Amino acid sequence: MSKIPETALAALSAFEAGTLTPEGYLRALLERCAELEPELRAWSHLDPEAALAQLAEAPGQGALAGLPIGVKDVIHARGMPRTCGSPIYAEAVSPVDAAVVALARLAGAYAMGKTETTEFATYKPAPTGNPAAPGHTPGGSSSGSAAAVAAGMVPLALGTQTAGSVVRPAAYCGVVGYKPSFDLIEPAGVKALARSFDTVGVFARSVADAALFAGAVTGLPLLKAAQSPDVPPVLGLCRSPVWDSAEPEMQAAWDDLEGMLRGRVATTEVMLPRVYGVAADAHPRIMAREAFQALAYEWHSHRDLISPQLRAMLDEGRGVSEQAQHEDRMMIARLRQRFAGDLGDTPIFVTPSAPGAAPDRKTGTGSPVFNRLWTLLGAPCVNVPGLRAADGRPLGVQVVGPIGSDEAVLRTAAWLAEVLG
Amino acid sequence: MSKIPETALAALSAFEAGTLTPEGYLRALLERCAELEPELRAWSHLDPEAALAQLAEAPGQGALAGLPIGVKDVIHARGMPRTCGSPIYAEAVSPVDAAVVALARLAGAYAMGKTETTEFATYKPAPTGNPAAPGHTPGGSSSGSAAAVAAGMVPLALGTQTAGSVVRPAAYCGVVGYKPSFDLIEPAGVKALARSFDTVGVFARSVADAALFAGAVTGLPLLKAAQSPDVPPVLGLCRSPVWDSAEPEMQAAWDDLEGMLRGRVATTEVMLPRVYGVAADAHPRIMAREAFQALAYEWHSHRDLISPQLRAMLDEGRGVSEQAQHEDRMMIARLRQRFAGDLGDTPIFVTPSAPGAAPDRKTGTGSPVFNRLWTLLGAPCVNVPGLRAADGRPLGVQVVGPIGSDEAVLRTAAWLAEVLG
Repeated sequence: MSKIPETALAALSAFEAGTLTPEGYLRALLERCAELEPELRAWSHLDPEAALAQLAEAPGQGALAGLPIGVKDVIHARGMPRTCGSPIYAEAVSPVDAAVVALARLAGAYAMGKTETTEFATYKPAPTGNPAAPGHTPGGSSSGSAAAVAAGMVPLALGTQTAGSVVRPAAYCGVVGYKPSFDLIEPAGVKALARSFDTVGVFARSVADAALFAGAVTGLPLLKAAQSPDVPPVLGLCRSPVWDSAEPEMQAAWDDLEGMLRGRVATTEVMLPRVYGVAADAHPRIMAREAFQALAYEWHSHRDLISPQLRAMLDEGRGVSEQAQHEDRMMIARLRQRFAGDLGDTPIFVTPSAPGAAPDRKTGTGSPVFNRLWTLLGAPCVNVPGLRAADGRPLGVQVVGPIGSDEAVLRTAAWLAEVLG
Repeated sequence: MSKIPETALAALSAFEAGTLTPEGYLRALLERCAELEPELRAWSHLDPEAALAQLAEAPGQGALAGLPIGVKDVIHARGMPRTCGSPIYAEAVSPVDAAVVALARLAGAYAMGKTETTEFATYKPAPTGNPAAPGHTPGGSSSGSAAAVAAGMVPLALGTQTAGSVVRPAAYCGVVGYKPSFDLIEPAGVKALARSFDTVGVFARSVADAALFAGAVTGLPLLKAAQSPDVPPVLGLCRSPVWDSAEPEMQAAWDDLEGMLRGRVATTEVMLPRVYGVAADAHPRIMAREAFQALAYEWHSHRDLISPQLRAMLDEGRGVSEQAQHEDRMMIARLRQRFAGDLGDTPIFVTPSAPGAAPDRKTGTGSPVFNRLWTLLGAPCVNVPGLRAADGRPLGVQVVGPIGSDEAVLRTAAWLAEVLG
């Protein structure tokens, strides 16, 4: 057994060259899991025999042929448990695949196992560690997907983002996390949390791998975009309306990054009108209201099995007036329409992925404050790793653009990854 | 046992007055079902003992306290089958409630049973008849919900609309059908068909009943709007971009209606810019593309159990380029934003609900051509019954307004129902 390929595309090349078989690849990954998982706890369900059986059923052709996928445990994968990180679903086994899993299968991939999630993709931490910063949170809610990809256990893993649940854990674990434009990837079969924001995303070890996956399940030529990294005509630099929340280590890294980028590309400071700050502040309220509605069954039938912090959020959401919610929705629709116009000549920009590096695990899963606005705007976001805090913990920055600009965002993210890599 | 109340609000009044108990009401409805169901086949699942048990578990308070709901068989109701009108799910029993069912339970209602649907809410007919036009289709896809409400088997029933699946069957069966603004009612737990359009709606025997239900599950003051019917300042009359598809019986009824309305209210002819006709033409393509993605699991794992006509639609959707789909989505978002502006001083208008009265059952479930554009625009639509073809079959017209104008649409629909009633 030769060295395990680092990326999905490298694995595909090795399959093509005949130097590796999909089964050999899976066995090597499973060996790595056997070694690391007892400490890392990235998987809520991983059964080597079942994974081998899934591979045996895969069609053997397609853009993802022979590639294993980690599936966040709020997403159905047929025959596997789906706990949503909640005791309510401790015994539940999925009778079907979520659409995105089926679309991945149609492209030749298979589900390797289920990855840990916080409770219903909210805040109660998963048991997962951070392979890039031991003792620190991997972030959430897609904790297991980020950690499994960072540890090299699986090349691709599905996540979902409603506030910062893809970009933040990707930043903390030092991997690529791609949250596409709102609704780009079909959400059927994914446990709903807040319907205005829920977006299926993917974790990978390169921008091209993330684009490979999203291209395969949508049909968009995203891989081509990510494989043609290009100096952006003008790159926006956006400290964002929540810059005051950036920690000193992020502020220092950002200053260095700005300096480095200004030496390589035309840049512009992106300053957003005040209304965007107001919108970002509205995100938690909208999310709480929609979460109460989405989780109405659990609230009605299993309230005692919901954690106190989630119960408090749902209770808050229950109290939001629907009239306010309605106005918030109209505001979101308007902002999504005008965002591209407000960005003007600088449609693609870089902004921090999180306030800083991964905080101590005891403090929770970190803050999504640097993610809420872009999620609200339905904007495609790609966390690009490469920066580090003084103690070596990864620091993430994300490439962002207006809704629908996924190709340009991936192209710029691939370029930035080369600059930082 | 006195006469069964005709409407949900009348039943609530009788409960309040002590002249009827929720159990007495249910038993009377079940007797009617026992009499009519063998011929009508509105229910895919109706178990009297289970319905009584559901009532016994209901909280006994709330805006819908003691009211039974028919649940379209694409929507989860815990412990009941959910077939989606497909042999793929012939044996499936829901382990959970859809959010809308749970929200109705939180308001005091209970699920009486499951109502027949066409295959995955598309076109393969359900076995249901039309109580208002024997031998003719009840319309689809929410066939059983429309028929059950029309036959007085249940005062309220849930439907879903992706093209014309609430308004059209309501028109054919001569009942109120309310398709709210896109995304107004939480869709979690409802089988997805096309995510840009899928909307949960409700069938009722009065506009106020429909508003009562939608108000209870959203928190919006919709009942108040429907109980204050008001002469609209100006009422739009919209033959719509597909007027050429109207049958002679609808054209004649429309002429009469226009004359009658002009005698009672200021009216304006609503003429929409050409782009709306283009958008309506795009609806089937977008729906096919999204349906292929939403039903990817069934396509991948159970293709032989999908009907030939649905397979053809999914195959067509599979072939739509994602780039075209992406542009279509951007077009939809833009039109939803500009529709209110294009309507100007006439935000609320009346337009046909269907090309004519219910066609012969042998021809299918009728055409959604008069519904596609409004669904695409996310517009609230209320079918108002009252008009009839020469042979007595119901002819429906709908009150429509821009997304978010549900209160004004319900107020005008209640007024129109008085005019036509």
